[in-house]
Amino acid sequence: MRPLMFENSTLKLLDQTRLPTEIQWVSCATYEQVADAIRNMVVRGAPVIGVTAAYGMAIGAMGCADLDRDALSHKLDAIGNCLFETRPTAVNLHWALERMKRVYTGSERPTHEIVRLLLNEAIAIDQEDIQANRAMGKIGAEVVPDGVSILTHCNAGALATADYGTALGVMRAAHEQGKHIHVYADETRPYLQGSRLTAWELMQSGIPVTLICDNMAGYLMQQGKIGLVITGADRIASNGDTANKIGTYSVAVLAKHHGIPFYIAAPYSTIDKSLATGKDIPIEERSPDEVTHFRGIQIAPEGVHVYNPSFDVTPGELIAGIITEKGILRPPYAIGQPHAPNPCE
Amino acid sequence: MRPLMFENSTLKLLDQTRLPTEIQWVSCATYEQVADAIRNMVVRGAPVIGVTAAYGMAIGAMGCADLDRDALSHKLDAIGNCLFETRPTAVNLHWALERMKRVYTGSERPTHEIVRLLLNEAIAIDQEDIQANRAMGKIGAEVVPDGVSILTHCNAGALATADYGTALGVMRAAHEQGKHIHVYADETRPYLQGSRLTAWELMQSGIPVTLICDNMAGYLMQQGKIGLVITGADRIASNGDTANKIGTYSVAVLAKHHGIPFYIAAPYSTIDKSLATGKDIPIEERSPDEVTHFRGIQIAPEGVHVYNPSFDVTPGELIAGIITEKGILRPPYAIGQPHAPNPCE
Repeated sequence: MRPLMFENSTLKLLDQTRLPTEIQWVSCATYEQVADAIRNMVVRGAPVIGVTAAYGMAIGAMGCADLDRDALSHKLDAIGNCLFETRPTAVNLHWALERMKRVYTGSERPTHEIVRLLLNEAIAIDQEDIQANRAMGKIGAEVVPDGVSILTHCNAGALATADYGTALGVMRAAHEQGKHIHVYADETRPYLQGSRLTAWELMQSGIPVTLICDNMAGYLMQQGKIGLVITGADRIASNGDTANKIGTYSVAVLAKHHGIPFYIAAPYSTIDKSLATGKDIPIEERSPDEVTHFRGIQIAPEGVHVYNPSFDVTPGELIAGIITEKGILRPPYAIGQPHAPNPCE
Repeated sequence: MRPLMFENSTLKLLDQTRLPTEIQWVSCATYEQVADAIRNMVVRGAPVIGVTAAYGMAIGAMGCADLDRDALSHKLDAIGNCLFETRPTAVNLHWALERMKRVYTGSERPTHEIVRLLLNEAIAIDQEDIQANRAMGKIGAEVVPDGVSILTHCNAGALATADYGTALGVMRAAHEQGKHIHVYADETRPYLQGSRLTAWELMQSGIPVTLICDNMAGYLMQQGKIGLVITGADRIASNGDTANKIGTYSVAVLAKHHGIPFYIAAPYSTIDKSLATGKDIPIEERSPDEVTHFRGIQIAPEGVHVYNPSFDVTPGELIAGIITEKGILRPPYAIGQPHAPNPCE
C-alpha cells in the first residue's frame, strides 16, 4: 500500500484527508504543491513526510535545470527551506532534506547531472524507507507474542511511510508469520488518523482491528484486553524521549500503570542525536478548527478557546524498547553517546 | 440554567443533542416520550436522568387517574420498568423511581390523590437536587485553591442536574466566591459532552474554559498545567469505586501518575450501598455509530468493528475525595458500613 508514486516528473499523493470514504490522488508538479500537500496533511506521518519532501526538492530542481551551478544551489537552498517549514516536529523531514543538500552542495558536476542525482537520491530515500520498514517489522515481530491484543495510536502504517509501515509494519510482519493478533486502534483526535487511516489500512490488509475512542484505552487495559502497545515516532532524542502524535504520552503512562510493555517503532533516521533530551523538540500547535469542527460542521461553541498541540513527548523511561531497522534499542537509552550500551550503535 | 421545566402537565427538556449550535426544547406529554428522551440522550447526566424519570412517572400517573387503585399501582409498576430500562448505569434513575414507588405502593388514598402526590414527589426530587448541588458546591469549593486550573471530563454541570451542577457546581461556587479558576474541558468522545455542553455552559456562566481533546490531558498534566481534577459520577459503590463517563478512569490514572488530586462530586443518592465494589456496576455499551459517524457523516471505514462502552469504573483508591451535599467522603471508603470512618454517615 504505497501512499505516493513518482511518475512523469510528477509526485502523486494518496489524499489522506479524504480517506476512508474517498480514494483520491493529488498530483504535485511543483515543489510549492508538494509543500502545500505536506502542510495540509494530504500526506502525514514522519517517514513519508521525509520521502515526500525529498521528491519535492527533486521536482524543484527539475524546474531549474537551465540555471548555472551557483544559481541552482542558491535556489535549492530556498526550496529546502520552504519544504522544511511545512511541519516542525518530525525530524525525518530535516534528515531527508539534509541528504538531498549533500548531493548538490559543493558539487562540481554540470547542473543537468545534479538534477538527475537529486532525483536518484529521492528514489533511494524512498526505497530505503521500505527496506527499513521490512527489516523493522521482522525485528519487531519478535516482541509480539502469538494471540496478543495490541493497542496503537495514530497511524504508523504503510500510509505514514513509503510502504509497509513502522508500528503497523511490526504487526504486519507478525501477522505474515502466522501469529494471531488483534489490534485496537485509538481513533486519535482531533484528526482521526486512527479511525480514518489505521482501521482502514488494517482492514485492507486483513488484520483484525477494533476501533475505540482515545479515552477508552485505560478501561481496556484495566480489563486485561491489551497485552502490548506499539506506536510510531516523529522524533527521538538521545535519551529515548520520543515525540509522537498527541495522546501517545497518556497511553504510555496508562501502559506503565498496568504493567503493559510500550514500544516505539521508527526508522533510525527518526533519532535526532543533536538532542540530549526531548524537552527541546518543537511541538506543533495546529488550528482550533481541527477540534471545533468536523468537515465544516461545528461541534463546539462559537468562539471557544482551544488548545491543540499536535504532538507530545514520552519520556524514555516509559518505553520498553525502540524498534529500528538496526535492532531494538533498550533503556537506559544513550543513543549516539560514546560507550552507548545499545547494540545498534 | 435549568435543562428541564414542568408546565401544564408537560415536561419540557432542553435538547442536549442539539447544543451548542441550536437551543431547542422537546415537549414530553406522555411517559413514553420521557423514556425516549432519556434513551436518546435529549437529557443525559445521572442526576437529571433521575429527576426526568420522576416527572415521567408523574406524567404517566396523570394519564391513569380514572383507574382504580390496584390497576393504577399495576400500571405504575409497568411505567417504572419502562423508564428504568432506558439507561443501565446511572443509579439515580433507580433511586428516583424507588422514591416514586414508595408514594403509591400500599397507599390507601384515592387515585386522584396518589396522582397528585406523585407529582409533588417529582417536584421535591427536582428541588432537592438543586439544593444538594448548591450545598455540594459550597462544601467542594474548599478543595479548590485560588488560581488553580481544573480538568473536568464529560458534563457534570447544570445541564446534567436540575440546576447548578455537581462537578461544575463546585467550580461555579469557587468562581462565585471570587476565586480565579481556569477549567480545561475534555471534549469527551464519542458524544462530545465536553465540547458541546461543558464548554458552552461554562462560557454562558463566564467561567474561563479551554477545550482540549481527551488524549491531551496527560500532556497538560506533564507540563504542570493542571492542579486539580473534578468529575461527576453515575454510580458509586460502598468502597468508593465510581462509575462515570468513559475516559474518567484514564484521567484518574494520569492524575495519580502526576500527583494531582482527583475528586468526584455527586449527590449522596449516587451512592449504591447495595454494591460492595464497582465490579458489579453494569456498563452500558452504545451503538458503533456514535464512534463511526458524526451527524450522519462517516468518519471511519464501512463495516469497521467498534467497541463503545459508555462508562468505566475508577477504583476508590485513585479518588482523593467524594464531594457530596453531606460532606466530603475520604478514603478508605466504607460507605454505609458499620463503623464507617466517613463523616457523612
